[in-house]
Amino acid sequence: MRPGDVIQTKRDGGELSHAQIAAFVNAAARLDGSGWEKYHLTALLMAIYLKGMTPAETAHLTRAMAESGTRLDLADIAGPKVDKHSTGGVGDKTSLILGPLAAACGVVVPMMSGRGLGHSGGTLDKLESIPGFNVNLTEAQFRAALRKVGLGMIGQTADIAPADKTLYALRDVTATVESIPLITASILSKKLAEGISGLVMDVKCGAGAFMKTREQARALAESLVAVGTANGLRVSALITAMDAPLGRYVGNALEVIESIEALKGNGPADLTDLSVKLAARMVELAGIATGPDAEAKVRTALSSGAGLDVFRKCIEQQGGDPRVIDDYSRLPRAPGTVPFVAGTAGSITSINAEQVGIAVRVLGGGRNRAEDEIDHRVGIIVRAKPGEYVTADQTVFELHGCDAAKMSQAAAILSGAYTLGEAPPPEPPLVLGELT
Amino acid sequence: MRPGDVIQTKRDGGELSHAQIAAFVNAAARLDGSGWEKYHLTALLMAIYLKGMTPAETAHLTRAMAESGTRLDLADIAGPKVDKHSTGGVGDKTSLILGPLAAACGVVVPMMSGRGLGHSGGTLDKLESIPGFNVNLTEAQFRAALRKVGLGMIGQTADIAPADKTLYALRDVTATVESIPLITASILSKKLAEGISGLVMDVKCGAGAFMKTREQARALAESLVAVGTANGLRVSALITAMDAPLGRYVGNALEVIESIEALKGNGPADLTDLSVKLAARMVELAGIATGPDAEAKVRTALSSGAGLDVFRKCIEQQGGDPRVIDDYSRLPRAPGTVPFVAGTAGSITSINAEQVGIAVRVLGGGRNRAEDEIDHRVGIIVRAKPGEYVTADQTVFELHGCDAAKMSQAAAILSGAYTLGEAPPPEPPLVLGELT
Repeated sequence: MRPGDVIQTKRDGGELSHAQIAAFVNAAARLDGSGWEKYHLTALLMAIYLKGMTPAETAHLTRAMAESGTRLDLADIAGPKVDKHSTGGVGDKTSLILGPLAAACGVVVPMMSGRGLGHSGGTLDKLESIPGFNVNLTEAQFRAALRKVGLGMIGQTADIAPADKTLYALRDVTATVESIPLITASILSKKLAEGISGLVMDVKCGAGAFMKTREQARALAESLVAVGTANGLRVSALITAMDAPLGRYVGNALEVIESIEALKGNGPADLTDLSVKLAARMVELAGIATGPDAEAKVRTALSSGAGLDVFRKCIEQQGGDPRVIDDYSRLPRAPGTVPFVAGTAGSITSINAEQVGIAVRVLGGGRNRAEDEIDHRVGIIVRAKPGEYVTADQTVFELHGCDAAKMSQAAAILSGAYTLGEAPPPEPPLVLGELT
Repeated sequence: MRPGDVIQTKRDGGELSHAQIAAFVNAAARLDGSGWEKYHLTALLMAIYLKGMTPAETAHLTRAMAESGTRLDLADIAGPKVDKHSTGGVGDKTSLILGPLAAACGVVVPMMSGRGLGHSGGTLDKLESIPGFNVNLTEAQFRAALRKVGLGMIGQTADIAPADKTLYALRDVTATVESIPLITASILSKKLAEGISGLVMDVKCGAGAFMKTREQARALAESLVAVGTANGLRVSALITAMDAPLGRYVGNALEVIESIEALKGNGPADLTDLSVKLAARMVELAGIATGPDAEAKVRTALSSGAGLDVFRKCIEQQGGDPRVIDDYSRLPRAPGTVPFVAGTAGSITSINAEQVGIAVRVLGGGRNRAEDEIDHRVGIIVRAKPGEYVTADQTVFELHGCDAAKMSQAAAILSGAYTLGEAPPPEPPLVLGELT
């Protein structure tokens, strides 16, 4: 099968056959003289971007990508295995909260997460703020964590969906990232390879998200549910607002603190509510409880401290220092904090999460490129959120930084990252839609 | 400038800036660590294929490609320099006839041609059927030929439009060939680099052509005229039929014979008429004569034998054996000929030029890939053309081959390459449209 013929089929808006998709994915996984080169892959990726894929094609692409590497078999570990995945946001630390809560309810949570890139953060980076925490467990260590704690939080190993690694790297440099079939296949191929039976998707929507509009977010959510189902994976999707940062703390160590506070019952309402809702969906997919019962179970795990206890065990199991839970001074901390004051009195009408994420990246807490090093200490605390009134001398953002020049650059970004108005805006709903 | 940003502009249907086009073309010409890789180029080529280019973008692309290498300066050679280019067909040997005819009328013809690929033939391959004929002249030899004969027929040197070489090779394997802006830029960039002031384009249209419909052919012709003009090159375009092969002889040495016959005044009407019309356009663009005067001048060059005389001198000047003109046995000749008989009586209603071209390729007279060797001896003579009546035992095609297995395979292709009917179809016009 010549690459040009496969490319031509998609170029002309046709449906790729199973064999054509298999040839494309095998080439991406190996590039081993199969006749395909990277320049064939990117031409096809652009054709897919512009011409789309049917749900059936996307389902085949996803399965082929999952099968391009190792697929974990967790059948020997008792209990229903359910994971959660977010399309990425700013201040989105729900994984650190809902993982322990769901595990406390009896769900086995084999969580494989990513690192931050661009303006959005990543669970692995947050966890690595905790001294000693190891996200690179061997498969045996991962299985031991799932058996003992019910929760393991690791990075994807190199042999999970290798085709996705090649394709994602190429999409990143050829303007072919924002394609619903390609996003769907990238997310779900890795999740299929994890050995889970259920997946809760948090599809972020808004200024700080990949999907800027509700239409885009809904289309992605529908694609994820359909393609997951076609591959035997139960998927629930929530479409949630990502205009302002979630919670108030943005930056790796800062987000660990806010997550622990949430597990202690002291979290901000938006963060706690979303974490509980997502955990309740996991409990539902696990078949443990349904509807209000599922949410009540999660609330109990929160108020009883059972969730906090799971997180403590998880940290211990993965080599981290569990004393951070009671002593935040054991987490890395930036040497200096600078308040960014409002200057004018008024109600905060909006905060642009993407700009806040970029400011954190500028401080050193995020990455421009996958190979960049990050500084876990730095970040921003949002002291005034939309709907809140500030006087002229009140702080809107608190910058935690290490380098005066970077802090000054971040402050400049933050000055354009919020709007003030006469009256507070109506409280926006956090959950914009649900698909199961 | 990041390649991804350029690709994104075109992906979203935007217009590329001069700087963006320059970055793309420079990368194609060199690929020298500018940050662009082949996989960026092909993603952009697919975006251009699917989103198009404005005439202004295509004009800039063409100029940038022409300037990516050497531009010949022929100002020191007296006389108007005009070339002809065809988009490629089957049995299309007009270059060998109109070049000498135009030169006999006083036009300086610095002709740079290509080789055959796929089902279509190439002027260089035909010329190389003539023992000793050298299409790889040095620039000094080429200038000498233009001064002495008024005609030089060579291949493009490596330093003419190097960006086109990279881009064409990538387009060929990524299904991005059939794009009007990309075809326009590929053709005209090389012609701009030749140092000519006028170009006659023969845009082929029909079953044996690249452009299958009149709409496509007209769109390409319009693009060629507009983009040529924008770059200071006068372009005339004829849209001509390429359903059946042009003339009766298809295959390299066979086409040389038919070309010489045409220059002797014995050519088939379609071939002779088209060659005369195209040569007349060259005479017009050269400013030597206009309208019916131009055509009359060319007809005189034909009937007087002046054109034949130029061809004889051209062969001699480029190291070939001019005795072939009077002795076709000096041309390479296939050892065997096999008639393909009609089997059923009737009128030929159509001959599919593409299938005939493929049959010649199967015989060894064409190429699948640019690096393939070809056999100049083999080919097909079309003994019955559309509108002609054949009895059951009459020959439709005469196969000239060297290998029995290949001849049998070619015959199988030819059996589906024509249709028989009750009455002859109306004579189709050869020239379907003209643009100047």
